[in-house]
Amino acid sequence: MSKKIVSQAVIKRLPRYYRHLESLEKQGIQKVSSGTLAQLLDITASQVRQDFCNFGGFGQQGYGYDVVTLKEELANIMGLNKTYNMIIIGVGNIGRALANYTGFKKEGFNINAIFDIADINTDGLSVNFYKMSELQNYVKNNAVDIAVISTQGKVAQDVCNEIISYGVKHIWNFAPIDLSVPEDVIIENISMSESLYVLSYKMTNKD
Amino acid sequence: MSKKIVSQAVIKRLPRYYRHLESLEKQGIQKVSSGTLAQLLDITASQVRQDFCNFGGFGQQGYGYDVVTLKEELANIMGLNKTYNMIIIGVGNIGRALANYTGFKKEGFNINAIFDIADINTDGLSVNFYKMSELQNYVKNNAVDIAVISTQGKVAQDVCNEIISYGVKHIWNFAPIDLSVPEDVIIENISMSESLYVLSYKMTNKD
Repeated sequence: MSKKIVSQAVIKRLPRYYRHLESLEKQGIQKVSSGTLAQLLDITASQVRQDFCNFGGFGQQGYGYDVVTLKEELANIMGLNKTYNMIIIGVGNIGRALANYTGFKKEGFNINAIFDIADINTDGLSVNFYKMSELQNYVKNNAVDIAVISTQGKVAQDVCNEIISYGVKHIWNFAPIDLSVPEDVIIENISMSESLYVLSYKMTNKD
Repeated sequence: MSKKIVSQAVIKRLPRYYRHLESLEKQGIQKVSSGTLAQLLDITASQVRQDFCNFGGFGQQGYGYDVVTLKEELANIMGLNKTYNMIIIGVGNIGRALANYTGFKKEGFNINAIFDIADINTDGLSVNFYKMSELQNYVKNNAVDIAVISTQGKVAQDVCNEIISYGVKHIWNFAPIDLSVPEDVIIENISMSESLYVLSYKMTNKD
């Protein structure tokens, strides 16, 4: 399969296709048409076919897609067939929520440790806690594929710089700022305020 | 200004423009070019100009945009010049994080109450707690512009149906499922797993 530049919009739809395919599989449905997928994602059938064209197609026109095969192809494309070692930096409510959420593990995302500058209450925390002073040593002795930054905005860039200086190349950022990273570092941001403002946009412009 | 259909991609960029304009304003910068905005958002200058064309322009070619004016125009477009009364349903870690986050209030998003089916530990919770059995009465006696659903996935649709049956028209969904809502209800989803899968996609397809 030749490598194409895939647009951000398509990339962001892949997890949604995947989630719906998981749900179809659970319902025992074996074949799905681009029309049904389109309805589930609230896009057009032609958009679905265009999206899949980026990855070489996945099916023959008119026959529908095999649910399990398509799900697995998308899993491969998104790298869900691997395992990832993750750490979380910052034990606020978001950090705790991530540490205790069991849904990521089944897709191979293992949260192995959580760090904070302060001594924290570790009650109810299902992941080993370390002080920030132990971070360098931890990264030296343990594989860290992804560092999650869930600190306050004002310290996030410093934390980001520190973790990158130890060799971590992939950052998942929950802090409410845009972080600067070197070109060889991959970062993905999740922003609650951006999502909320999209909601208020839709409320303001609903007609 | 005539109403156009604005694409999802453009709508999702508005909060990012806004955040960068806030930051430029804080730095005392008065004018910004489409080129600078493009760099900050990692898109092209022509995309910036196209985005703004959806809303009638905002400036004269070659003069740059006035930072404060542009920020305020975007705030108006996103409905950030209003106040919103919000409630949260579901007191997990995410619900707690949202209830205690002070950043939304300064943009007019007031979280007035948080509900759960169970009696919960209200230590450290900065918002009034109510049992779900009080929800109907609360909605009858208080304005609720937005209901935040931060329950587990398996109960989210029931909670969503209940709150809509009381007349709430706008839902911000943190539960990891796609909720079905009537046509006149506006819903915005924020999904952690979707964001994580975009990161693993980028890690898998980095060349």
